[in-house]
Amino acid sequence: MLKIDVTKKRLDTEEVKTLEEMWRRAARRVILATTLAGCGHPGGSLSSLHMLLLLYALIEHDPKNPRFPERDRVVISHGHISPGVYAVLCEYGYFPEEPFLMEFRRAGSAFGGHVEQSVPGVEWNTGNLGQGLSAACGMARALKLKGLERRVFCVMGDGEQQKGQVIEARRFAVKFGLNNLCALIDYNRLQIGGRIYRVMPQDIAQEIKATYWNVIEANGHDFNELYQALRRVITGEVLCPEKPTAILAQTTMGKGISFMEDDEKWHGMALPPDLAREALKELGFDPQELDILLEKRKSYPISFPHFPHDPEPVEVETGEPILYGPDVKTDCRSAYGKALLSLAELNNKENMPPKVLGITCDLEGSVKMSAFRKASPQAFHEVGIQEHHAATVAGALSKEGFLTFFSTFGVFAVDETINQHRLNVLNKTALKIVATHCGLDVGEDGPTHQCVDYLGLLLNLLGLEIYFPADPNQTDRIIRYVAKSRGNVFVGMGRSKLPIITDEEGKPFFGKDYVFIPGKADLLRKGDAATIIAFGSVMPEVMKAWEVLKQEGVSVAVVNMATLRPLDEEAICEAAKRGPIMVVEDHVVESGLGSLVAKTIAKHGLVAKLSLKGVTRYGSSGKPQDLYKEQGLDAASLVKAMKELIA
Amino acid sequence: MLKIDVTKKRLDTEEVKTLEEMWRRAARRVILATTLAGCGHPGGSLSSLHMLLLLYALIEHDPKNPRFPERDRVVISHGHISPGVYAVLCEYGYFPEEPFLMEFRRAGSAFGGHVEQSVPGVEWNTGNLGQGLSAACGMARALKLKGLERRVFCVMGDGEQQKGQVIEARRFAVKFGLNNLCALIDYNRLQIGGRIYRVMPQDIAQEIKATYWNVIEANGHDFNELYQALRRVITGEVLCPEKPTAILAQTTMGKGISFMEDDEKWHGMALPPDLAREALKELGFDPQELDILLEKRKSYPISFPHFPHDPEPVEVETGEPILYGPDVKTDCRSAYGKALLSLAELNNKENMPPKVLGITCDLEGSVKMSAFRKASPQAFHEVGIQEHHAATVAGALSKEGFLTFFSTFGVFAVDETINQHRLNVLNKTALKIVATHCGLDVGEDGPTHQCVDYLGLLLNLLGLEIYFPADPNQTDRIIRYVAKSRGNVFVGMGRSKLPIITDEEGKPFFGKDYVFIPGKADLLRKGDAATIIAFGSVMPEVMKAWEVLKQEGVSVAVVNMATLRPLDEEAICEAAKRGPIMVVEDHVVESGLGSLVAKTIAKHGLVAKLSLKGVTRYGSSGKPQDLYKEQGLDAASLVKAMKELIA
Repeated sequence: MLKIDVTKKRLDTEEVKTLEEMWRRAARRVILATTLAGCGHPGGSLSSLHMLLLLYALIEHDPKNPRFPERDRVVISHGHISPGVYAVLCEYGYFPEEPFLMEFRRAGSAFGGHVEQSVPGVEWNTGNLGQGLSAACGMARALKLKGLERRVFCVMGDGEQQKGQVIEARRFAVKFGLNNLCALIDYNRLQIGGRIYRVMPQDIAQEIKATYWNVIEANGHDFNELYQALRRVITGEVLCPEKPTAILAQTTMGKGISFMEDDEKWHGMALPPDLAREALKELGFDPQELDILLEKRKSYPISFPHFPHDPEPVEVETGEPILYGPDVKTDCRSAYGKALLSLAELNNKENMPPKVLGITCDLEGSVKMSAFRKASPQAFHEVGIQEHHAATVAGALSKEGFLTFFSTFGVFAVDETINQHRLNVLNKTALKIVATHCGLDVGEDGPTHQCVDYLGLLLNLLGLEIYFPADPNQTDRIIRYVAKSRGNVFVGMGRSKLPIITDEEGKPFFGKDYVFIPGKADLLRKGDAATIIAFGSVMPEVMKAWEVLKQEGVSVAVVNMATLRPLDEEAICEAAKRGPIMVVEDHVVESGLGSLVAKTIAKHGLVAKLSLKGVTRYGSSGKPQDLYKEQGLDAASLVKAMKELIA
Repeated sequence: MLKIDVTKKRLDTEEVKTLEEMWRRAARRVILATTLAGCGHPGGSLSSLHMLLLLYALIEHDPKNPRFPERDRVVISHGHISPGVYAVLCEYGYFPEEPFLMEFRRAGSAFGGHVEQSVPGVEWNTGNLGQGLSAACGMARALKLKGLERRVFCVMGDGEQQKGQVIEARRFAVKFGLNNLCALIDYNRLQIGGRIYRVMPQDIAQEIKATYWNVIEANGHDFNELYQALRRVITGEVLCPEKPTAILAQTTMGKGISFMEDDEKWHGMALPPDLAREALKELGFDPQELDILLEKRKSYPISFPHFPHDPEPVEVETGEPILYGPDVKTDCRSAYGKALLSLAELNNKENMPPKVLGITCDLEGSVKMSAFRKASPQAFHEVGIQEHHAATVAGALSKEGFLTFFSTFGVFAVDETINQHRLNVLNKTALKIVATHCGLDVGEDGPTHQCVDYLGLLLNLLGLEIYFPADPNQTDRIIRYVAKSRGNVFVGMGRSKLPIITDEEGKPFFGKDYVFIPGKADLLRKGDAATIIAFGSVMPEVMKAWEVLKQEGVSVAVVNMATLRPLDEEAICEAAKRGPIMVVEDHVVESGLGSLVAKTIAKHGLVAKLSLKGVTRYGSSGKPQDLYKEQGLDAASLVKAMKELIA
């Protein structure tokens, strides 16, 4: 495996020769892989090859142990250059060539069309452009927090510099002093639509300089020029050593194959076999090899094992729950803030890397992270009004073995960033998204700030757990529970102060003996005429309605559904067997719990009279109780609706 | 109403005095409105007041006819300064003061917590930061297209400059030569979290210059300095008259009230009554007024009418449908491209403003907009890899009376931009989102590119119509239908070529006599043992399964659900009455059509055996038919599942 020592000023002739030979072999694989698959992205793969080949010769890595903690990390942000990346990883011995060429872009294979961590050596799944630098920031920050003097290299396309999330990431890198971060930009001046300056004029160098990064320009196909640039980064011989550095590598799309060079047609199209044979000839290989491999691929089984990439484990103490008595009136956000503080106090020790991280976007006070920040300043991350970047950076930190809480309002934590979370989930992160200000309960800030669709959106993230506590006691338990959970979790809450939920004797329902069990609904009140299933901020109205109904001699059960995924289907079926069901939620009816309840009933072949109460139009700007009344979610309306339901 | 002529070099003393008096009255309203409501954002309102007051004295506007086409437009991007905006609109006679002070931030009122078009004079609802400049770009582009020599002023916060979408908008403005666009930045150096340079260090001026805008700095509380700056913009006396201009107005949060100045506490908090009385005293008003108004507000009815703001109408010819014969094999994308081309040919005339616009994000070829671009170059908008900006700019153009088609892959048109569409819907835009590459049907590009949750996400946008054609014929009809529709519409499609759906005689089902009716399912095949309800790219597998079942003597009906909202509940109920139902879709089972069918059945108190077939885990990277097989969506799996269902 080629390893070049950065102490010397230039590569020697032997090294350049070795690299040129490596390049020739890697280019062959790019051509073969894409033509064999009949699709893929050879153009950008070829323009990135020189820098990728040299990079791995300079960094700390181990193909036999790709995930050892003290490695340098390479994030490929423009994931479509997977043929180039796999070709280079193959050259460095991460895996043999055959399974890559035979399985690339076949259903079930580890070798997907965009880079995925199922391939050993890949650090981050990408594909949707503009997110890779944020992930790289998360890794670079993780290395700093862990006290590891290693680096993160983020290889990027030039077209993707257009994405707004990229400049958010650049600013973050400066704020957090990520001089261990280097972006390598494959500046081939072409994107799918043609010349980047025609598609969207942009002065990439000026924009980067405006965020105070170091910028180095180099010929991306000259190994010695690339070496000078990377050497400056690695030895810290840059203008501002405390700042991150971008290398603008001037390249040519399709480099090395005469008829592919500088033609955007080959961005996302494989060479047809006849042209692929020409290309192999140009590279000095036997063109007939293509036909042999084409034949072989037809019956080649999908067999290369997917590289496992679970998040790094984190061991935390979750301490004793905080109990809120029946007379306390506080908001779930404050209970979250207190639980988070106790997690920090228990787990973030002085002179040790913190275990619990907090991330927010200019809403520290509103999401109640101030006490956490004061107790654990090094663990707190104010990312500014840059939610897209924040969501990705938080995901990357969670994957690096930090218990990471990402908190902002529901509209920013969910609606604005659902696609960032989608890519986090594909990356098997372990992020805890705790969103405050969900629902009409946001109140006077109005419809732009009322997230009434979090459940509808989040149900689409496969595998995500979804919780929504009913009061501060349950909030405390759920937060401590999720601190131990290994996956991606969402915990939602409203804005207002909520009364403590009590049992019929007036003792806290989620009291000393309560244990939170995911997928287990809480039967708050027994009753036989009907059931109200509800969750979250409407619970006080539901309890008031129950009280009125009781006084009027109507006995209804009340079920709190704090776990929205996994769903307690048994509790729903029991309710259906009991009689009519009214679902009440501070969420769009179309996509909320009511919809899940109806679906569950139908799935189990049951029948029950249903009344689905929730948000049916965007809220106005006013006090939550007035907004609830506007949409029939206040106690009086619920009582009326229940009477109609059981009539 | 104050109107200042920009021919003179300076404001005269009289004008400054008038403006100062106006400022005093407006500041009073800011204090009163927020304290009366007990919440809101007085700090930024006060820092923006001078520029807002002067701006309306310089632009073309008419309080009696706020939406006349030849007006200059003012977009308030940091919508939380609504008290300041309303105070100024009030000063210019858009509405009387009383309803504003009495109704601000009360449920059902026009005067919401963030600016909304329900208030006369407001051009765009904002609140989620960073979207306003994109909307302003859409308006500025609309003015250029219409040949109106008017301007758009976008008033922005400094904190929101952190949002990535802002730089996307800036680049767009340069590409499209929007020198009729001016951003006025309220540079008070504070955001909720404190000093902007602590929250997220950013050199705003450098970043703007890096995108080649003109930048003018001015004291934002000096009417004459502001006048010089705005005058330069209006008269075109800027460094590059062909470029947009940003005015960086140095301001002070809470300006004018001694104890509020430069304190971020007052960003989002109203003065308590005692301090409000102090503030009124400082402004020279009777502090007792507050108490009178507080009392009056208690019983003041919500009565001020919401200002209507439907999108400008657009009259288009939709022409004759293109018919695809039973032997044709093409993709729905190509059928869309052809329908779009015929809309352009029919409606976009030379030397006239185009009526039909196309917008894409570096995917012109994939979304089949090339023919449209060639036929109607001035109507085509290549926005680059800047989806957030593109979605908002497209929304704004649709509102300005252009039939606007926004096309990119499903993951970008939906997952990445759902929050931009949410704000579009709140703004009552009339955008036609046509997303190609939906579902596993995307194939080898893998899970990052497979949008398997479009329906789950889009159902949360209240009022949006959702269509998904089954073949090229139906695509053509749906596109021509939506060209006439007034609201926001989504049309989804896959990537692959699809066979033409025929009736049992082999004639195109969506043939010459077919009329597309929203909310009406298509009974493709009759049958009595069970029903398959399906839509989109799985339809060929469904039809194959039907054929096999038929040959085996099993008679099942096949229903095509091309309209997902409005949903044909009647067709679902009929199917439930007929017997077992299998739903088949290239979409996550949890949130797709199967879920809607189950919900409909439960809602109507029916029972039916259900089998919901769809995506249950993220897809891999391979040929669509292989991916369908992996998830049990191929014909053979469907046949097997149907037999189990009816057994």
